[in-house]
Amino acid sequence: MEDLKEIGKKAKKAASLLGKLGVNDKNNALLCVADALTANAGRILTANAMDTENAVQNHMNPGLIDRLRLDEKRIGQMAEGIRQVVKLEDPVGEVLSMKKRPNGLLIGVKRVPLGVIGIIYESRPNVTADAFALCFKTGNAVILRGGSDAIHSNQEIVKVINEALAGCGIDYAALQLITDTNREIVKELLRMNEYVDVIIPRGGAGLIKMVVENSTVPVIETGTGNCHVFVDESADFDMALDIIENAKTQRIGVCNACESLVVHKNIAKEFIPLLVDRLKQKNVEIRGDEMAQEISGAVMPAVEEDWGKEYLDYILSCRIVDTIDEAIAHINRYNTGHSEAIITKDYNNAQKFLDEIDAACVYVNASTRFTDGFEFGFGAEIGISTQKLHARGPMGLKELTTTKYIIYGNGQIRE
Amino acid sequence: MEDLKEIGKKAKKAASLLGKLGVNDKNNALLCVADALTANAGRILTANAMDTENAVQNHMNPGLIDRLRLDEKRIGQMAEGIRQVVKLEDPVGEVLSMKKRPNGLLIGVKRVPLGVIGIIYESRPNVTADAFALCFKTGNAVILRGGSDAIHSNQEIVKVINEALAGCGIDYAALQLITDTNREIVKELLRMNEYVDVIIPRGGAGLIKMVVENSTVPVIETGTGNCHVFVDESADFDMALDIIENAKTQRIGVCNACESLVVHKNIAKEFIPLLVDRLKQKNVEIRGDEMAQEISGAVMPAVEEDWGKEYLDYILSCRIVDTIDEAIAHINRYNTGHSEAIITKDYNNAQKFLDEIDAACVYVNASTRFTDGFEFGFGAEIGISTQKLHARGPMGLKELTTTKYIIYGNGQIRE
Repeated sequence: MEDLKEIGKKAKKAASLLGKLGVNDKNNALLCVADALTANAGRILTANAMDTENAVQNHMNPGLIDRLRLDEKRIGQMAEGIRQVVKLEDPVGEVLSMKKRPNGLLIGVKRVPLGVIGIIYESRPNVTADAFALCFKTGNAVILRGGSDAIHSNQEIVKVINEALAGCGIDYAALQLITDTNREIVKELLRMNEYVDVIIPRGGAGLIKMVVENSTVPVIETGTGNCHVFVDESADFDMALDIIENAKTQRIGVCNACESLVVHKNIAKEFIPLLVDRLKQKNVEIRGDEMAQEISGAVMPAVEEDWGKEYLDYILSCRIVDTIDEAIAHINRYNTGHSEAIITKDYNNAQKFLDEIDAACVYVNASTRFTDGFEFGFGAEIGISTQKLHARGPMGLKELTTTKYIIYGNGQIRE
Repeated sequence: MEDLKEIGKKAKKAASLLGKLGVNDKNNALLCVADALTANAGRILTANAMDTENAVQNHMNPGLIDRLRLDEKRIGQMAEGIRQVVKLEDPVGEVLSMKKRPNGLLIGVKRVPLGVIGIIYESRPNVTADAFALCFKTGNAVILRGGSDAIHSNQEIVKVINEALAGCGIDYAALQLITDTNREIVKELLRMNEYVDVIIPRGGAGLIKMVVENSTVPVIETGTGNCHVFVDESADFDMALDIIENAKTQRIGVCNACESLVVHKNIAKEFIPLLVDRLKQKNVEIRGDEMAQEISGAVMPAVEEDWGKEYLDYILSCRIVDTIDEAIAHINRYNTGHSEAIITKDYNNAQKFLDEIDAACVYVNASTRFTDGFEFGFGAEIGISTQKLHARGPMGLKELTTTKYIIYGNGQIRE
């Protein structure tokens, strides 16, 4: 196995140097990296061809091969993404507050990099450049562990980035890739508390579960979304249908897609047939409770496990409830703390839903698909946190920082 | 073993109710609890006597027995602590920002309770009332697991609190104590991700290590402090001596006490003898590197493990360095991310130290002993975080909350 401790040491050393870099130095380096990626697209594509050929031989499913495949355009998008990060304000160094205590101590709160960030992801080589740029802009050293299917692509991207960084005088380990494909090495990374400050997994439910269960390093849990839309009895039907169609079908494989519908019983008889008609056009299978099945023969039976399921497919579960309280209780029981929406014209119900739903993002009369760092105006996104510590919801640059107290005294001692 | 899952379910249910309580209801309940503690002091003292008798029979060391022992005055202090929490502003419900996006979505960030907090602590029964009050004020349900040596005291305190809460109509599980003294039950608690949002350990290094290594629930690591004072070459010697004496000896068993000294070589010959004289008065043993030993025969030899040690005793390690860079590197290598101080008259060195030291609290010309929620003006403290995620440094009420995005739309769908 690779010497992970050595990687950790180098990253910690790099973090202390990156923390001192000014924003101009960081932006210049990022621009060099962006240029290098397009200039060396040929090298990256050659490496990527090895990965995609292996994937074809290993009968990887076509959707995953598509995620894995790079072309000139996609490399151009990677570079463009980095140029966008250059334009974002650097959150590091801001003093958020500074107050004088009665004893004369001046206590300030300053935003600083987290230090060393470990990112574990699956076979999307674009994440490699993307995650690097966000961590670098915030002065963090990063250790990446990508999916083994993308190993050649990732190695070449990291090589190109590191050559560009060295050209800007950054000849220390700001970005390292774990190339050992042994899975045990991930578990070792997850226990390197001495060198790693935070682990961010990006990927499917299985990866995230493995990280949460094995990590002693603090984790920011991202991802899994069992998002609901609740159609209240006062909902505008057209709005509800538009939002549900958008949230379910605009992009099915994403964590902010709607997976489950909750409908107030007073409108169910009228609304469900309209819903069936609308979703038929997109070939969405609806799996409902008994009442929903009675209302429309097109509704298939749902079983208990449907309520908690992130389908990532053209399937939607549907439950009919007697009251908004029952809707809230159902959603709070089965959701993953991601994004939930109510469609209503009722003021009190809107406020009640916003107050009582336990999730990162709670919507009134809008699609859950907006839960996204770009849509929220952050200009970037490293993931969507579904936990409550540190960051909740879409994470931009600020979420890759921490604070420290800086205290100015003139000889104070404690009585 | 106790049915921990049942405890978790009840706590989660309680959290959803506590989240809806207004600040007046919470404050009234806390005042009832404070009154109940003093009114039922006799019951609590009877239970506490069982614990202290057991402790004497088990030859517990006198310092620990002192921590365990309650009397009328200490119960009065517990009640008074709760009344202080009543006076603090409730952070829950504040909308920290609200911005309109180009598509008309109004996106707000609202402060909300964390949910269910698990607190694991050692044999200080005062923590029981203290931790409850802070969690309750912030609308969180709490599951406590105290040291088995304090089990009778804790059970009685929790009983008194719950009776008082029920008298205020809070007849759900806002506060639960795990009474099973089997250690395996703690590990079960640490893996109850479905019901527990965060674990906060309060205690010694061993407890904290056990929690960090076993928890799949997010942890806020508190406590261990290997705090340094760096005496720069331009330091005012009197100020340095006052601060070091204070930081080392004002209270030796606490995490913000100074454990290690770093001295610039240009002043070492003059300063170390003054230091030896000053600390002799408090019987502090100094363990130094070779140069320190050469300067004063009173300096004992330090070994490698001294540099990383939290003595919690009248012992201080002492290292002499050639430059401030060496001082910073030494401190960043051996510290625990808690509190570090420089004594200097030099502007650039002060700023450099503030910038480059990696710790929760970095001081110029003041004692590390100020790292404390009360000293920082928070009016309360649930612990001192030495990690970088979520909270860093002293944690008050705000650190017991999270945020959620509340989004007001009028039919927006994603293009």
